[in-house]
Amino acid sequence: MYFEEEHGFIKQSLKVKEKIFETKSKYQNIEVYKSEDLGNILVLDGNAMMSQKDEFIYHEMLAHVPICTHREPSKVLIIGGGDGGCAREVLRHCDIDIDLVEIDEEVINVSKKYFLGVSEVFENPRLNLTIGDGVEFIANAEDKSYDIILVDSTDAKNHSSGLFEPAFYAQANRVLKDDGLMAVQGSSWFVDMDEHKNILKKMGSLFDIVMPYRYEMITYPGVNWNFILASKKYHPTADIILQRADLIEDLKYYNSDIQRASFAVPTYVKKELLGIAKN
Amino acid sequence: MYFEEEHGFIKQSLKVKEKIFETKSKYQNIEVYKSEDLGNILVLDGNAMMSQKDEFIYHEMLAHVPICTHREPSKVLIIGGGDGGCAREVLRHCDIDIDLVEIDEEVINVSKKYFLGVSEVFENPRLNLTIGDGVEFIANAEDKSYDIILVDSTDAKNHSSGLFEPAFYAQANRVLKDDGLMAVQGSSWFVDMDEHKNILKKMGSLFDIVMPYRYEMITYPGVNWNFILASKKYHPTADIILQRADLIEDLKYYNSDIQRASFAVPTYVKKELLGIAKN
Repeated sequence: MYFEEEHGFIKQSLKVKEKIFETKSKYQNIEVYKSEDLGNILVLDGNAMMSQKDEFIYHEMLAHVPICTHREPSKVLIIGGGDGGCAREVLRHCDIDIDLVEIDEEVINVSKKYFLGVSEVFENPRLNLTIGDGVEFIANAEDKSYDIILVDSTDAKNHSSGLFEPAFYAQANRVLKDDGLMAVQGSSWFVDMDEHKNILKKMGSLFDIVMPYRYEMITYPGVNWNFILASKKYHPTADIILQRADLIEDLKYYNSDIQRASFAVPTYVKKELLGIAKN
Repeated sequence: MYFEEEHGFIKQSLKVKEKIFETKSKYQNIEVYKSEDLGNILVLDGNAMMSQKDEFIYHEMLAHVPICTHREPSKVLIIGGGDGGCAREVLRHCDIDIDLVEIDEEVINVSKKYFLGVSEVFENPRLNLTIGDGVEFIANAEDKSYDIILVDSTDAKNHSSGLFEPAFYAQANRVLKDDGLMAVQGSSWFVDMDEHKNILKKMGSLFDIVMPYRYEMITYPGVNWNFILASKKYHPTADIILQRADLIEDLKYYNSDIQRASFAVPTYVKKELLGIAKN
């Protein structure tokens, strides 16, 4: 039996034993599959979000790249991330407090039941959880109140579409401090270059430093996807800051070499992106 | 209609219009599929080898990483590579002559018919083609006669299995000059770590510098695969040598940032590889 996911010309199929959970929340269809090689797999509206085997890659890359780019972050806003994986990684940095805003409480409940090792963070006193809409939350947040914003959402459709609008990026820019930065879902060079360019263009008009970086998820169609880092001041491959990157304990994927490497851009992508950020 | 390929827990399916060619050569089953998004796809014994859309990534990474690591290569041996793509990339370097040894003449014929843009190299006077067994060819080659050896083969089975034996690597070491180096297929960290470690271990006992590097092929199950560079003298991220990397004309993937980035190793892989090269 396979869990199958189509994305353009690719269909990715993951060998699974059975579907062990399914529910329709107010916002989306939630499924959990059990697999011998990948552990449990979380699927939202038909898209694989993570497996227990490879979730560390996505979560380490979404959290530590922005954190190690910032000189001294203390306040992080996570929008989405109801599974808890992104927060788990941020909490490895002892001086950081988190506000986490998840629209769908059911995702948290499912994660607590089926993704042990990811969801324990919700007991941590340094994490302040709000069940609500990230777009509304950020519109009501104070100016310059966060060092870092991490958007850990599904793709740009349905309840997540507002997180990919220029108005949202502008609000994020407003609530970030003068040396603040953010990371968001950035689609994929090979599977959906147009969507990638769209996001880069929107953020490029608001932030001085806007750079895509690569991560890999064996559970995603096409495997190589991108986050986009948008920063007011710090540059993600400045070596002084990166000294911290290799001192984080218990990581499985991320290190300073990986941070630098993740920003390398193939020549065909450079040609595609020419001029985008300035328009 | 899909072309489907299973590798462990992953099944990769590529949308295709039709199978436009199939033959059984003396060595393998050869198929060509036509696809809207990927162009023609070459399949050997059920494994996708390349598509017209993404073959540039594989061939640029197999050729230019070793060439730009070497200070002044003039003589390259390609074993396999009957489609011509690897040779096309090597020939971009004007001072290099190639011996190419392909066991299956039928692969060359199919490439000439269905992969224009890849196979024109066989008319080039700087390429000397031999139809024959790479293992035999290298056993009969003179000591220290090549600067670089590139092994562009199918996986370690059937007629290719000899190219993954210690005896072959030892012969390669013998026919390489004192500052020579080679690159070979290195399997995949995520899809087949055991095979990757096997190859590293065999080469590690023969060469001072043995390093895996990553490339991506959307047509391969798991997408991210590895080559392994084995070198007697030169190190692949030495910056003086890399100055040449950005001066090669008409490339679509490779550049000096990509060369450095391709050698970055995730932390879980470092832990897996601990001690391998020394045993």
